[in-house]
Amino acid sequence: MVIVMKPQATQEDITGVEKLLERLNLGVHISEGSERTIIGVIGDKRQLAETPLELMPGVQRIVHIVEPYKLAGRAFHPKNTKIQVGNEIIGGNKVLVMAGPCAVESEEQLMSTARFLKTQGATFLRGGAFKPRSSPYSFQGLEEDGLKILAEAREETGLLIISEAVSTRSLELAAKYVDIIQIGARNMQNFSLLQEVGRLKLPVMLKRGLSATIEEWLNAAEYIMSEGNYNIILCERGIRTFETYTRNTLDLSSIPAAKELSHLPVFADPSHGTGRWELVTPMSRAAIAAGADGITVEVHPNPKEALSDGPQSLNFDNFTELMIDIRRIASILGREM
Amino acid sequence: MVIVMKPQATQEDITGVEKLLERLNLGVHISEGSERTIIGVIGDKRQLAETPLELMPGVQRIVHIVEPYKLAGRAFHPKNTKIQVGNEIIGGNKVLVMAGPCAVESEEQLMSTARFLKTQGATFLRGGAFKPRSSPYSFQGLEEDGLKILAEAREETGLLIISEAVSTRSLELAAKYVDIIQIGARNMQNFSLLQEVGRLKLPVMLKRGLSATIEEWLNAAEYIMSEGNYNIILCERGIRTFETYTRNTLDLSSIPAAKELSHLPVFADPSHGTGRWELVTPMSRAAIAAGADGITVEVHPNPKEALSDGPQSLNFDNFTELMIDIRRIASILGREM
Amino acid sequence: MVIVMKPQATQEDITGVEKLLERLNLGVHISEGSERTIIGVIGDKRQLAETPLELMPGVQRIVHIVEPYKLAGRAFHPKNTKIQVGNEIIGGNKVLVMAGPCAVESEEQLMSTARFLKTQGATFLRGGAFKPRSSPYSFQGLEEDGLKILAEAREETGLLIISEAVSTRSLELAAKYVDIIQIGARNMQNFSLLQEVGRLKLPVMLKRGLSATIEEWLNAAEYIMSEGNYNIILCERGIRTFETYTRNTLDLSSIPAAKELSHLPVFADPSHGTGRWELVTPMSRAAIAAGADGITVEVHPNPKEALSDGPQSLNFDNFTELMIDIRRIASILGREM
Amino acid sequence: MVIVMKPQATQEDITGVEKLLERLNLGVHISEGSERTIIGVIGDKRQLAETPLELMPGVQRIVHIVEPYKLAGRAFHPKNTKIQVGNEIIGGNKVLVMAGPCAVESEEQLMSTARFLKTQGATFLRGGAFKPRSSPYSFQGLEEDGLKILAEAREETGLLIISEAVSTRSLELAAKYVDIIQIGARNMQNFSLLQEVGRLKLPVMLKRGLSATIEEWLNAAEYIMSEGNYNIILCERGIRTFETYTRNTLDLSSIPAAKELSHLPVFADPSHGTGRWELVTPMSRAAIAAGADGITVEVHPNPKEALSDGPQSLNFDNFTELMIDIRRIASILGREM
Repeated sequence: MVIVMKPQATQEDITGVEKLLERLNLGVHISEGSERTIIGVIGDKRQLAETPLELMPGVQRIVHIVEPYKLAGRAFHPKNTKIQVGNEIIGGNKVLVMAGPCAVESEEQLMSTARFLKTQGATFLRGGAFKPRSSPYSFQGLEEDGLKILAEAREETGLLIISEAVSTRSLELAAKYVDIIQIGARNMQNFSLLQEVGRLKLPVMLKRGLSATIEEWLNAAEYIMSEGNYNIILCERGIRTFETYTRNTLDLSSIPAAKELSHLPVFADPSHGTGRWELVTPMSRAAIAAGADGITVEVHPNPKEALSDGPQSLNFDNFTELMIDIRRIASILGREM
Repeated sequence: MVIVMKPQATQEDITGVEKLLERLNLGVHISEGSERTIIGVIGDKRQLAETPLELMPGVQRIVHIVEPYKLAGRAFHPKNTKIQVGNEIIGGNKVLVMAGPCAVESEEQLMSTARFLKTQGATFLRGGAFKPRSSPYSFQGLEEDGLKILAEAREETGLLIISEAVSTRSLELAAKYVDIIQIGARNMQNFSLLQEVGRLKLPVMLKRGLSATIEEWLNAAEYIMSEGNYNIILCERGIRTFETYTRNTLDLSSIPAAKELSHLPVFADPSHGTGRWELVTPMSRAAIAAGADGITVEVHPNPKEALSDGPQSLNFDNFTELMIDIRRIASILGREM
Repeated sequence: MVIVMKPQATQEDITGVEKLLERLNLGVHISEGSERTIIGVIGDKRQLAETPLELMPGVQRIVHIVEPYKLAGRAFHPKNTKIQVGNEIIGGNKVLVMAGPCAVESEEQLMSTARFLKTQGATFLRGGAFKPRSSPYSFQGLEEDGLKILAEAREETGLLIISEAVSTRSLELAAKYVDIIQIGARNMQNFSLLQEVGRLKLPVMLKRGLSATIEEWLNAAEYIMSEGNYNIILCERGIRTFETYTRNTLDLSSIPAAKELSHLPVFADPSHGTGRWELVTPMSRAAIAAGADGITVEVHPNPKEALSDGPQSLNFDNFTELMIDIRRIASILGREM
Repeated sequence: MVIVMKPQATQEDITGVEKLLERLNLGVHISEGSERTIIGVIGDKRQLAETPLELMPGVQRIVHIVEPYKLAGRAFHPKNTKIQVGNEIIGGNKVLVMAGPCAVESEEQLMSTARFLKTQGATFLRGGAFKPRSSPYSFQGLEEDGLKILAEAREETGLLIISEAVSTRSLELAAKYVDIIQIGARNMQNFSLLQEVGRLKLPVMLKRGLSATIEEWLNAAEYIMSEGNYNIILCERGIRTFETYTRNTLDLSSIPAAKELSHLPVFADPSHGTGRWELVTPMSRAAIAAGADGITVEVHPNPKEALSDGPQSLNFDNFTELMIDIRRIASILGREM
């Protein structure tokens, strides 16, 4: 941590800061510049988090040097984290595809999708049983019935299943059925939910929040990890910007960035990231080309009849083409699929 | 709702959309333009929310004409909502001030603040007992002990109390003590929490999310209202933009905008909105001048020792000046304080 | 400037940076932390601007401590800058109002507006002769004829005039007529135009760019000042965010912030800032309450017939009310009007 | 265009709007909904651009249905535009690479880069002679001397050259030397510069503005085209968002989106788009995978000594790898390189 003093700070101001730091057993390096003094702080700064140094006389601002997360950072765990789920390994050499409808609507819809996905080489079936909808009047999901249908599809096809939890109650239910719990963008800073997920043993897919920086995303992973659950998959799903042509702005640069800062696997969700099915295939290709460990996409047997997010779902033909494309790109990067 | 057809849409495409709408018992107005056809839809469009018309052949885009919220809108309730809390009325002619520390830290800290605020004419004491902190290693609040200290301060000073709930459990606890429940920016789209709050009788202060549009903010209010709790106070607390000098960008234009679109009272939080104590007083004046029904500000007996958010807290002297300033501005606008 | 080394930086890396800095005659302070080393740099760092230290082995990032602008900063000129224009002083105790139509459309329109404004106590008449329009098919302004009409209005009413320049040619023309040159948001980083304005003696109103940080805004002022023209008025006019209800998000916190960082006067433009006439009066009140030295607002004798930006223009009655409101708020803050 | 009336609009209000439209010889379709009336407008709405219908009594808002640009749109020119430059065709089947230093610094630097690029299969040499720098104290470019060095490099290597113009004067100079003129992000809405470029015959690379929507970007292209120059290459170079880890957020979804809305070729600039050399190669791969017609990247013989933008420049080895990667991805998409 570096403390930048104001140009007009007095010697007394500087001594004041110095004494405070010494009282906290922190090392101090004073560096007198041509225009102002800066003070380097050495030692365990966790206690300082609670001391608003910005308010000390003469202090202009505080510059944090070290990232606030530890367990999620590469420094703590230099090798890539690999997560075993069923017979699959996430974060290894293989590129994985999660696919399925936005919401589980009926047994028929899900089973026909699951059977199709199996033939195309997808490894995970996704489908929402609890839907966080911005209007209270929209379809909110089949809840436990939806989870049961997902489990049935796994039974028949062997696809592993992933579904979202939005609250304590839905988490308890989902944990009984799914192979991976999803935490959605709107709950990325629902810290009590993160802590509950951290106490489970299940792998978690943590979506980036609509307005979350990469650092805040890794801090959210840290919340889960600090409770003991290290099996986290990050998922870029688009951030909110001024552009309205796409539903969100899919920030693909966050994929190589997160992989540099962290050891956790990183996926992309081009369906929510763009909100337009025509953009899903090009952006899926781009995500794999940028280094993603996998993608999650919305596929629906008949997107025109989907109860939620139809406009961003692929139909079966589109999905078949997408798989051909990304299989080729994965192979160029030396990855299996 | 208006359906815009593509320039190259065929007569068959248009008939296809027409038939679908008629099957749903919706009225249809076809308007053939010089470049393309647009189709107006008349009737209860709620069922259409589940039909992705964007995927029908020939459809370019859908334009929603009517706001998705009902109960929160001025059309539903043309007069301003007034909320009685203790002997105070929120949303009436009187401008109200909520003040107190970011977090309840100790009995001494809170009682000294409460006694001081009482002398200055604040009506509500605020203080966090459950703190949503972006790092798991930061101070998380005194929990129920904090709520007890708040209740004690009410007992002695007569100030009404407001505190934040961040989960089902904290909501149950807080509801036993507080006069107003606060839902923070990070939980504005925690829909299961909104529904639980909607089943309580307690007034709710609903903060705008970091990246929430005004429409989404009113939709979040609608979630609470759709469960039966109509006593909602909106609170602008800054949105996330590219500017980093301030912690957030306090969007004061949302105050007159929300008051035009909705009948609910609107407050502003210049402490979180700016993150810098020097900006709190000018932005408090501005909020009242823009038409806010009140403000909520952080005050701490000794901001330099605050366990959380010190840099944005006022000390007692700053707060005294702030009250003088806004009292004058309120009087110019014909409001009491 | 502080250089943060990577945790795994070697002694050789540190020595490499140290030697480079010494070769540039800069002082070096090395501070070995518990996790990494940081290097403070002392002296005239201007040459370093051209040396990409980020690419030196072992360097993680560079933290700039000192603002890049000099002449525009408070450290260089601690007292408020006051700019004399005609008999008026901008940046002094008096709050000033600039008003008029978005575009000069006809002599009749402008003269009737000017006469009205004079009766209400406005001091500057504004009106665009060169309009930067996002579509090439929109009305682009009356050009020199518009400037002549403005000058005529000054002749008759005594109001001082301000108008925008968008290019070298329009700048040459405008400089012959106006009292203040306006540089619009879209040209805030048109550096060659800024330099040309810097060579004039005329005062300049520099609008904040749509996506400019406060620091970039002050850097743009620095461009003008570095050519010798110190008479700059900053003007906040709204930034681009995700919110679409308002045309822009008027960032009123930039007013007290810019006044703290800089000595230059700061105005606000609530017409472009909101894009909705109903919000202009509340946001004008808020701007003055936040400490603005004045406002610039669009007024049109008949906004319904305006050739540009009608929806954000006030009619005469609205403007009369606005003047009453802000006069009162100015007086509370101890300012004349 | 659709006019949405307020719920409380009277019959008189509706008739008022109707009469106005008829006076302008526009067709009118009135559609009475269950909650409000909407009015469809048919015919040439260009004149309406100047009539602020939003201010008519009873009008709530105006919804524009048709894009404001014509010449830049796919409807006007359904096939892809191909631009011949020297022996190369931009926008055809071949993926093209423009590379070179951010700024031309010396003959030696540029010639060594050009010779290297030639061996790797790049087709265009880029290099700034006029640099728009946010601080007036930074290196501003070699101006005409830089252009001469670029022309020399073309002479020797056969590479075609592209360089940026930032003003009338620099445009006149650049037009004498370069094969393609670049208009930078900060000048995307410098409309007078766009018009001047439109009067030239030279191809133009138009970079997307920092806060420009895709629609505004195409409107900027329309400005150039409306003056007669149809040879425009669009270039995505990152938009400004709240994320600060990357210098900008490279919005790759704008590539397939712009190619859908427009017939113009689209490039990407991952160097400015990310500001970090480690991200340039993954994002270059992603851009080609998303469908870009080419990329422009910064390459420097010794990035550590670059006078501008060193941290985002590749060295020769990195560039060699990048070319291998994107060549493979292009071939998967059935494109030559």
